[in-house]
Amino acid sequence: MTDIHTLTRELQRKNDSKIVLLVADGLGGLPMEPGGKTELETANTPNLDALAARGVSGLSTPVLPGIAPGSGPGHLGLFGYDPLQYQIGRGVLEALGIDFDLGPNDVAIRGNFCTLDDDGNITDRRAGRIASDIGAKLCEKLDTITIPGVEVFVKPVKEYRLVIVFRAEGLGGNLADTDPQRTGVPPLDPQANDSSDSASLKTVEVANEFLKQARELLKDDAPANFLTLRGIAKRPPIPTFEEVYGTKPGAIAVYPMYRGLARLVGMDVLDAGQTLDDQMACLKSNWNDYDFFFVHFKYTDSTGEDGNFDAKVQRTEELDAAIPKIMDLDPTVLIVTGDHSTPSKMKSHSGHPVPTLLVADIARFDGLTAFGEKECLRGGLGQFEAKYLMLHALAHAGRLEKYGA
Amino acid sequence: MTDIHTLTRELQRKNDSKIVLLVADGLGGLPMEPGGKTELETANTPNLDALAARGVSGLSTPVLPGIAPGSGPGHLGLFGYDPLQYQIGRGVLEALGIDFDLGPNDVAIRGNFCTLDDDGNITDRRAGRIASDIGAKLCEKLDTITIPGVEVFVKPVKEYRLVIVFRAEGLGGNLADTDPQRTGVPPLDPQANDSSDSASLKTVEVANEFLKQARELLKDDAPANFLTLRGIAKRPPIPTFEEVYGTKPGAIAVYPMYRGLARLVGMDVLDAGQTLDDQMACLKSNWNDYDFFFVHFKYTDSTGEDGNFDAKVQRTEELDAAIPKIMDLDPTVLIVTGDHSTPSKMKSHSGHPVPTLLVADIARFDGLTAFGEKECLRGGLGQFEAKYLMLHALAHAGRLEKYGA
Repeated sequence: MTDIHTLTRELQRKNDSKIVLLVADGLGGLPMEPGGKTELETANTPNLDALAARGVSGLSTPVLPGIAPGSGPGHLGLFGYDPLQYQIGRGVLEALGIDFDLGPNDVAIRGNFCTLDDDGNITDRRAGRIASDIGAKLCEKLDTITIPGVEVFVKPVKEYRLVIVFRAEGLGGNLADTDPQRTGVPPLDPQANDSSDSASLKTVEVANEFLKQARELLKDDAPANFLTLRGIAKRPPIPTFEEVYGTKPGAIAVYPMYRGLARLVGMDVLDAGQTLDDQMACLKSNWNDYDFFFVHFKYTDSTGEDGNFDAKVQRTEELDAAIPKIMDLDPTVLIVTGDHSTPSKMKSHSGHPVPTLLVADIARFDGLTAFGEKECLRGGLGQFEAKYLMLHALAHAGRLEKYGA
Repeated sequence: MTDIHTLTRELQRKNDSKIVLLVADGLGGLPMEPGGKTELETANTPNLDALAARGVSGLSTPVLPGIAPGSGPGHLGLFGYDPLQYQIGRGVLEALGIDFDLGPNDVAIRGNFCTLDDDGNITDRRAGRIASDIGAKLCEKLDTITIPGVEVFVKPVKEYRLVIVFRAEGLGGNLADTDPQRTGVPPLDPQANDSSDSASLKTVEVANEFLKQARELLKDDAPANFLTLRGIAKRPPIPTFEEVYGTKPGAIAVYPMYRGLARLVGMDVLDAGQTLDDQMACLKSNWNDYDFFFVHFKYTDSTGEDGNFDAKVQRTEELDAAIPKIMDLDPTVLIVTGDHSTPSKMKSHSGHPVPTLLVADIARFDGLTAFGEKECLRGGLGQFEAKYLMLHALAHAGRLEKYGA
């Protein structure tokens, strides 16, 4: 089986088209009762409905049927990277999300400050959710740790969350978390998942030394008097978006993790501001400098996670209201989709397929009149694996040569 | 993943069924305006509509979503050969299309006569589109070239186009074109795409010697005083249709390339004549001698390539009128499809899925009443990769045993 990117490398064609990929995180939903409407179907979305009427719709399967992806695989799929082939550790995501320039020799770790009692047992896995400025000061302290032969970086994320990076040749990234996922017990010792993986055993030694020094440095800083290590990982070797597709991509995302994901595939991370209006202004001001834009909208996911059906409806309407600002720029291709479903009814990511809409001059009209889960089921894109979405995007932008004679 | 042919070799069953695969080249289309009808939807096709009403329809994806295939991969897919696995060079197609019996040691090349000025720069890449009889005479001249240890064949195709075949053991087929794709510069020297590929380096030597002699032979034949070499390739090792499916296939195609593709998978090439009526007569007269017929109709593609919506509609109606002649023969299975879409709006092959219709006694009726892109979207075959079409064909002809106990 030829890899998708082998094909896109061979077939890519440059032109002056513009592609916008608008990802409404967790877009897909469920009715609260059988026979009812989903969040998207409930929302008043005149702009999205108008796009559905002139474009082509379908349902995207993020990974495989039934599989609920995290944000990493969800987005990698949309970017055309097989999420079963490219696997990204949480530590890597966190590091990328704080603009850390992660290199190929780096092991990235998500740290959580925690509270230990006098016996060394965890009493609070989040250190009382300390304020971000306190977390930042403690990170400065930990950043002074030196380990011979290893560069150590410690950076704050938010509140009790931090990122630790060990940089040295020959370090492996296949370690278990030290967070025991409960209180009343001590943190776990760093451990390699595979006892014959000498590179990861070397990282275990480094982590032990780091934690030894950290315990000493933090001993008087209760409630944040220690930390746990999670999502220990190296970045996978991943080809850049520009190399595989021949487009120059810019990412417009408010939340760190999505900027991190964009950076992982080599997108330029643009100054997205804080609101959807800011993001639209960013899109407009960068319009001439890029030919692919990834725009990320977080709140369809977070409201779904909260189980707040009405709030998800409202956030969906907010997204709809932004559509004319994108269309005013006259993109060659606009795709509206999600990285996965987050039904309010489930308060979590789910494996349900995701409503997807593509508008382009050469989209094959499918006769739909609205954008919603049930409509998309009858859409011309059919049900497809998310990893093929970029082929649709490039094809509708005229950016693929014919395959074969 | 089990190869399709591993399965069909194991499961094939002989019976006296007849399968007709009618390929309307470039069948799929687009409306000229959003909300409009495609060429196929516009055409008056009472016979195809009647078949849709008693058969099962769907949409075929020739290669992968969005990928517009050339005729080679488009047809290989329909024949059940994964077009990403079997890749066919242009030179091979051209050679097969002139009934050249291409062997496993042959390197096939598409030649273009061209015009060189006194400085050796190309002034016309097609030698003034010389008449076919002139081209044929020049080919006879070039056919006298002898190269020690190599058999050389030079055959005319049409006008300025010719086929050159080098036959010798150990020749590679991975060479770049010598056509610089522009005028005012000399032809490129033959070059291997991979400098460590000794077999192709050997072919470079042969090509150099051939071109040296050709330059001398043609020097007084302006405007055709030289030639360029394109699509240099060997035929891929490809199992025959009869071996993988257990059917005896005959091909009825007016245009050389499609005869060549049929020959590549081991079909007998029948005398198709020049018109669709001729093809129908050929089908009838060979009915008892084969159990699988590939019938190729070119003009839905060529009119689409011309951007002539109305002409494509008319050609589609012409195809429709031939349907009763096929049905009169009472085929067990009739499939009507295309190798790809060629929307008049785009004047090119496209990656849009292709309307497909299958009629058989055991087809599961899907309630459609017409044959067209939008109808097919609701058809019982769903959206499927073209490479699976042969499984449908064989299954509906009762030519597959049960899989497993």
